[in-house]
Amino acid sequence: MKGAVYLVGAGPGAADLLTLRAARLLGEADVVVYDALVGGEILSLAPQARLIPVGKRAGGRSVDQRLICRLLVGFAMRHRMVVRLKGGDPHLFGRAAEELAACQAAGVPVATVPGVTAAFAAASGLRLSLTRRGLARSVTFVTPTVGRGQSLDQQWAKAAAAAETAVVYMGAQQAALVQAALIAHGAPERWPVALVESASLPEERFAGGALASLTTIAAALGPGPVLMIMGEAARSATEALALAREAA
Amino acid sequence: MKGAVYLVGAGPGAADLLTLRAARLLGEADVVVYDALVGGEILSLAPQARLIPVGKRAGGRSVDQRLICRLLVGFAMRHRMVVRLKGGDPHLFGRAAEELAACQAAGVPVATVPGVTAAFAAASGLRLSLTRRGLARSVTFVTPTVGRGQSLDQQWAKAAAAAETAVVYMGAQQAALVQAALIAHGAPERWPVALVESASLPEERFAGGALASLTTIAAALGPGPVLMIMGEAARSATEALALAREAA
Repeated sequence: MKGAVYLVGAGPGAADLLTLRAARLLGEADVVVYDALVGGEILSLAPQARLIPVGKRAGGRSVDQRLICRLLVGFAMRHRMVVRLKGGDPHLFGRAAEELAACQAAGVPVATVPGVTAAFAAASGLRLSLTRRGLARSVTFVTPTVGRGQSLDQQWAKAAAAAETAVVYMGAQQAALVQAALIAHGAPERWPVALVESASLPEERFAGGALASLTTIAAALGPGPVLMIMGEAARSATEALALAREAA
Repeated sequence: MKGAVYLVGAGPGAADLLTLRAARLLGEADVVVYDALVGGEILSLAPQARLIPVGKRAGGRSVDQRLICRLLVGFAMRHRMVVRLKGGDPHLFGRAAEELAACQAAGVPVATVPGVTAAFAAASGLRLSLTRRGLARSVTFVTPTVGRGQSLDQQWAKAAAAAETAVVYMGAQQAALVQAALIAHGAPERWPVALVESASLPEERFAGGALASLTTIAAALGPGPVLMIMGEAARSATEALALAREAA
């Protein structure tokens, strides 16, 4: 018997930013294999399922990706329906490629369910648009984070510096590297940057300023996941954050 | 009396790719102002609301953006809750900036609700990941479409060509321009491109090949909204599409 595997986006954090499809699949799953960033309220939508945590919190230990792939295939051999629940959207920095390939190689039916990515929740918290007519028709999502044994090339920084709006995922722990790499690839030192920690959650926090001060700005935030939005589209948000700071 | 305005992402098309929050707000709205791409099944979640279509179908007529802004503010003066429903996510090519500014200028409380963008639904349909460890850590979303009276600059093409994965929104009507601009800015002629029409809907269709053949590839699709995904991340999808075409 072979069950099916669904790689499901859990969205940015708030439980009501799950899709209707994700909520339905959670209610039908036999097994849910989930990342550390997925909260308890979301998992409570699968009271019938066996819940398997597999780590992946920034800076902390996590289960090896190859082991996760083996787990998914193994569960699909013994269960009708396996949900692999990932923060955000599975197609963007979600390691979906490895898990799709592992299921396909084992002959396990697999599908992905798109989700709301953290950048959109961060933009919502800041009340800004990532694009603007006449100002920004390109948005680049990058991460400086690399896996073990991989090159430290900076194509990501080149792509981000070339965009009108740049969004950096998983960059707060490496703010000095992000700042230096973007400036080295031509991003202006005065580029507005707005940072959002724990977007969409009650503990959501904001910080903002200019790219040249990114390390200082990032240091003002806590240990939650941080999104960085850079470019003219972030200017009014950073100015509002500066006013709020002066008033405090 | 002033009501509140919610700029809500309706997701890529399939009704069950709405977020739980969007579905709840639709069920509570007094007025729903919606784009042409939002389908009837989604609108049926707001049976109690007055439904106001405002166009915005590719190539067709649509209500002027300034008029939409005036409509939103006007409804908020007379109703408790106004939902502005947009295809995809409102922060990405969604004209949220203008509508946020109009509400704020009028003193109308306004918030945005993030949604699933079409690129993720297209990636799901193609069973590909937009990012891959060691292969793609940058994804750029662009559109060549400009509003009236705006410059035809090609920063969008530069940003897309600099990314490891490029996603082009609203480009199918201008495939020749997209092809020429990307190649002029350094994208390889042999770059894999995968196109998805009406992502997530029953009429979803695919086409693929190399960037140098983009105009031919786009011509194989119909009048629905088309997403283009380009880069090495699309290679296996384009190869699978080529095999399927040969087998047919």
